[in-house]
Amino acid sequence: MEDCLFCKIARGEIPAKKRFEDDEFVAFDDINPKAQTHILIIPKKHITSVIDLMPEDEGLMGRLILRAQSIAEKSNLSQDGYRLCINSGRHSGQEVDHLHLHLIGGNPLGPIA
Amino acid sequence: MEDCLFCKIARGEIPAKKRFEDDEFVAFDDINPKAQTHILIIPKKHITSVIDLMPEDEGLMGRLILRAQSIAEKSNLSQDGYRLCINSGRHSGQEVDHLHLHLIGGNPLGPIA
Repeated sequence: MEDCLFCKIARGEIPAKKRFEDDEFVAFDDINPKAQTHILIIPKKHITSVIDLMPEDEGLMGRLILRAQSIAEKSNLSQDGYRLCINSGRHSGQEVDHLHLHLIGGNPLGPIA
Repeated sequence: MEDCLFCKIARGEIPAKKRFEDDEFVAFDDINPKAQTHILIIPKKHITSVIDLMPEDEGLMGRLILRAQSIAEKSNLSQDGYRLCINSGRHSGQEVDHLHLHLIGGNPLGPIA
């Protein structure tokens, strides 16, 4: 997607503090962190939100959760715990229309909604 | 797990307002809802949290996300959007030590942490 902010980050056209990258995913720091550690993990494939997932994306989503687990472990969040969160659509407060998983931890967190 | 609250709900030993059930997952209303719609989706398999996922759980997690999408659609949350959230460990506020996905929507939501 030509004009998508997160596609541009995935392509390296916009700088971000990257934490992880492979063929399928990129992880980078949220520029407006809600906790001591706040990392966004995105599929490089442009998917607008969970609402738009197709059946063939099931494997991708499984790998996304396991990748988040691995990034959390490497970010020293596993001992005290962390939250994974995906906003989809207007009511949720989704701010960029490219599916992204929030990995949040490093301090006790507030309510989930 | 003999004494796990969510295993007991999955086995039907403790009542819950179930929204969905198949061989692998059960979905039921959160008894302390944080929004107009607040559904918990759990794997019947006892997994403590995302921290404890094994590589072989990858497929299960992919199916969990797609199942959440489907339950959200049936709950009329897709048009206005919804949040998916998994708490893991102490800092996150995880209250039951059996992996559960929060599906939250029906009204504009507060911050994610």
